[in-house]
Amino acid sequence: MSHPHPELSGPPPLPRGALRVTPLGGLGEIGRNMTVFEYGGKLLIVDCGVLFPEEAQPGVDLILPDFSAIRDRLDDVVGVVLTHAHEDHIGGVPYLLKEAPDIPLIGSKLTLALVEAKLTEHRIRPYSLQVVEGDVEQIGPFECRFVAVNHSIPDAMAVAIKTPAGTVFHTGDFKMDQLPLDDRLTDLATIAELGKAGIDLLLADSTNAEVPGFVTSEREITPVLDRVFGRAKGRIIVASFASHVHRVQQVCDVAALHGRKVALVGRSMVRNMAVARDLGYLKVPADLIIDLKEIDDLPDDKVVLMCTGSQGEPMAALSRMANRDHQVRITGDDTVILASSLIPGNENAVNRVINGLTRWGATVVHKGNAMVHVSGHAAAGELLYFFNLAKPRNFMPVHGEWRHLRAAADLAMKTGVPEDRVVIAEDGVTVDLVDGVARITGKVDAGYVYVDGSSVGSVTEASLKDRRILGDEGFVSVFVAVSADTGTIVTGPVITARGFGLDDQTLEQAKPLIVQALADAAAEGIGDTHQLQQLVRRSVGRWVSNTTRRRPMILPVVVEV
Amino acid sequence: MSHPHPELSGPPPLPRGALRVTPLGGLGEIGRNMTVFEYGGKLLIVDCGVLFPEEAQPGVDLILPDFSAIRDRLDDVVGVVLTHAHEDHIGGVPYLLKEAPDIPLIGSKLTLALVEAKLTEHRIRPYSLQVVEGDVEQIGPFECRFVAVNHSIPDAMAVAIKTPAGTVFHTGDFKMDQLPLDDRLTDLATIAELGKAGIDLLLADSTNAEVPGFVTSEREITPVLDRVFGRAKGRIIVASFASHVHRVQQVCDVAALHGRKVALVGRSMVRNMAVARDLGYLKVPADLIIDLKEIDDLPDDKVVLMCTGSQGEPMAALSRMANRDHQVRITGDDTVILASSLIPGNENAVNRVINGLTRWGATVVHKGNAMVHVSGHAAAGELLYFFNLAKPRNFMPVHGEWRHLRAAADLAMKTGVPEDRVVIAEDGVTVDLVDGVARITGKVDAGYVYVDGSSVGSVTEASLKDRRILGDEGFVSVFVAVSADTGTIVTGPVITARGFGLDDQTLEQAKPLIVQALADAAAEGIGDTHQLQQLVRRSVGRWVSNTTRRRPMILPVVVEV
Repeated sequence: MSHPHPELSGPPPLPRGALRVTPLGGLGEIGRNMTVFEYGGKLLIVDCGVLFPEEAQPGVDLILPDFSAIRDRLDDVVGVVLTHAHEDHIGGVPYLLKEAPDIPLIGSKLTLALVEAKLTEHRIRPYSLQVVEGDVEQIGPFECRFVAVNHSIPDAMAVAIKTPAGTVFHTGDFKMDQLPLDDRLTDLATIAELGKAGIDLLLADSTNAEVPGFVTSEREITPVLDRVFGRAKGRIIVASFASHVHRVQQVCDVAALHGRKVALVGRSMVRNMAVARDLGYLKVPADLIIDLKEIDDLPDDKVVLMCTGSQGEPMAALSRMANRDHQVRITGDDTVILASSLIPGNENAVNRVINGLTRWGATVVHKGNAMVHVSGHAAAGELLYFFNLAKPRNFMPVHGEWRHLRAAADLAMKTGVPEDRVVIAEDGVTVDLVDGVARITGKVDAGYVYVDGSSVGSVTEASLKDRRILGDEGFVSVFVAVSADTGTIVTGPVITARGFGLDDQTLEQAKPLIVQALADAAAEGIGDTHQLQQLVRRSVGRWVSNTTRRRPMILPVVVEV
Repeated sequence: MSHPHPELSGPPPLPRGALRVTPLGGLGEIGRNMTVFEYGGKLLIVDCGVLFPEEAQPGVDLILPDFSAIRDRLDDVVGVVLTHAHEDHIGGVPYLLKEAPDIPLIGSKLTLALVEAKLTEHRIRPYSLQVVEGDVEQIGPFECRFVAVNHSIPDAMAVAIKTPAGTVFHTGDFKMDQLPLDDRLTDLATIAELGKAGIDLLLADSTNAEVPGFVTSEREITPVLDRVFGRAKGRIIVASFASHVHRVQQVCDVAALHGRKVALVGRSMVRNMAVARDLGYLKVPADLIIDLKEIDDLPDDKVVLMCTGSQGEPMAALSRMANRDHQVRITGDDTVILASSLIPGNENAVNRVINGLTRWGATVVHKGNAMVHVSGHAAAGELLYFFNLAKPRNFMPVHGEWRHLRAAADLAMKTGVPEDRVVIAEDGVTVDLVDGVARITGKVDAGYVYVDGSSVGSVTEASLKDRRILGDEGFVSVFVAVSADTGTIVTGPVITARGFGLDDQTLEQAKPLIVQALADAAAEGIGDTHQLQQLVRRSVGRWVSNTTRRRPMILPVVVEV
């Protein structure tokens, strides 16, 4: 098992006839999935997603994969295969296409429709190639065979990529619901056939590799919803992911059974479900879905609100309802269903929403107290089935943090993959498939690229470090103007602090120290403003630390007049 | 069921012969538990804990209850009963005693010993009254009867408080392990006796009221540890709470069985276990516990490190090991056991530790993959037993967020407490027991008091709001000196930004706008520096927002020279 890789350098030239696999995201993290395949001088990309920031990345909107490893070779990119339309697989596409608008996108009907709806907002019209499961497409030197997989969004696909170097199978995100709502199973027959023919390298979704057993069928949610609907006295508010067509389908079906109308709430929910209805993925009677403003004309017990915000996003409808900051005012008769996962990192936000809703008396149903959510990722039991059919010669877990990658590797070894054919890589690590053996050969840049307001990449780790200090400690700024001739103070010091626990009056106590430091400097003939600033920083920093035992950022500005 | 209370005002005077219960912390939150009981002009306090900050309180060290409701009446306080020695029940004691050093502390032997060890660090020597279960003490007008309860620290007690207004029972934190490690059961016989005599108001720990069933016995952890120890090739590193004497006992017992020595790591672990050993709560052979520096002389498979940091605290040993920033360098032969709960809010930090350790190849065992932790709080099944024996006439859930309080209230009603005798209060709400009926009557201040470095209470919500803005957006400061006579610029503008995504060169673009704004002001005869600062703030703010779509803090300083 190759791992970990503390000191890898740039990869060697790729041997003739070999295939290089470079994950630019999704390994060591859940999100921004992106893998680059290189053969014969051409590049094929599978997925291009975003990662949502956590508290250590304050103020950041999104995190992209670093495209720098392929930036000089965008002309060699023959296409981007999109396995499905979740943000962590497609969210980076607009940013990639801004750099190279002519790269074709390859995906299923729903995947492309949802990507295109998103690109329209960025005013991009992509070149695209629609495929269905079973299709075999030659994309540059890559022969791609698309395989149906079941996931928490319809129309997801895995892809087998064949080159003279061998066959690589990339699962994308998948699970193996044996009674899926749309009867579209993960195509184990084809996977078995590919396994028999020989899968040289398997890249598999590891997200749930630590979870024992099997994911319950999506279908099992219907009777639970039915029971909750049956008991609800007033409005029912359901939150789920805006792309979870099957979940919305089940809510609509149960609503119809109980004589309730459904209003969709939230921009992405409205947009995605319009696409899904148009294309026939969401099947509802014409009069079931109503406009939000129509709910006031209906009795509470005839209404379902289907909304976003299941992750506690502060600006989404659900959080605002919990804070009584929304036109829908929660009462003790409301029933709120969080029909959703709890993405790691969102625990506090979701907990706040549940507490807020409970405080107003609402009954809150969530996966902690009822089976109103099932995961979209294969659990350990499913992965064992999958590995036994795919019989990979080499295995490389993807889509997971270290703990998940390691758990998936352990499962693969249990099914017979030899330990020396298991590659635990991380973002940026190049894995070369040479003569049927996958090995780590080097590393390219794969750091975080931050989207922050309208800027992409201009927020750096240094600015985030500053934000963390500012956010924890606040700052103290000191301004002094000194005479260019004598070095004596002309005006100031003006001391200002923000986010810091001392009042202005106490801050005044630092002034004599600054005055003294500058007087000493003048006496010694130190006139360079940069040096004076350092002196001011030091004397203020020392005083603050002694007085408060905190270390706020100190920003001294000394100018000459 | 009284709840919620959007607009309560100050409570009315307490009627003669009535008892007032005022929770100053622990309701609507997990932490800073503190309840004030008032009868006949005297106050009895039960517990005085701290709350640990979450991400919305950046940089804060601790959160205390607001003592302002009792500050003018500290002379009326007849004592502080401490139910057990967890930080969320005792952490506020040093701060309370700094205000009134002569308030006596009442608690069990271990509780007082651990509090006193802590107070020594604050250079406080308290007055204290040691009690054992079964004791009845008259403390002012309050007749207190102490009742043994089982919890995740030894020697915990509940208290029955009797006054002419009736009997109140406060559980403190508790569970009902029927085979506890120290054979000290939650004393249901006494609770039954009190229930028969009549408990007028029950305050019960609600933390686990949402969890169905029963907490597994602490004893069940031993065989799991034994299996993990049996398989471990190299060192074993166990993390748990520094006060969990029984957990440490089990680790020591299993270590001895496997011929390993135990080194304690972490200041609070070393301090608490020294106290527990001295008093006989931790029973280990004399040569079992060794010093950390002795481990180098032993083979890896003879070593156990028992350390703090189970909540992913960044400065604790475990986090530093995960980051390879500790003398103990993690290898693929190490086994790490997180024998601990996962406190809500710490998910990310703990996840980072697990991933970090896994990345270096360690085998990580945690409550997600093995039964190496059981909770210290009664689950729903236990609460039902408890309520059926205590038969409270009024019920007030404590120690929980809204969701937990509500769940505990639902359980109490299922056992027969009438809905109109259930009081869901929140911090600061006064609950008066008058003629045997508990009712919400008003509200006192019970906001957060922040401990930040050496300051208590000087960090306000406003400074935290500034920190959140600074942490998310950074700041831009602008300094300009203008002539007092003409209003023209003498020096500047000097623009500085931190934590913000624009480089200095781009920031220069804002200068002409500032110069223009000040020239316009001079032309209009605006000379007041405060007004000029507003103008600068507005012009820079507009430019920044248009350029970046972000809203950093803008700090303008205009001085006259």
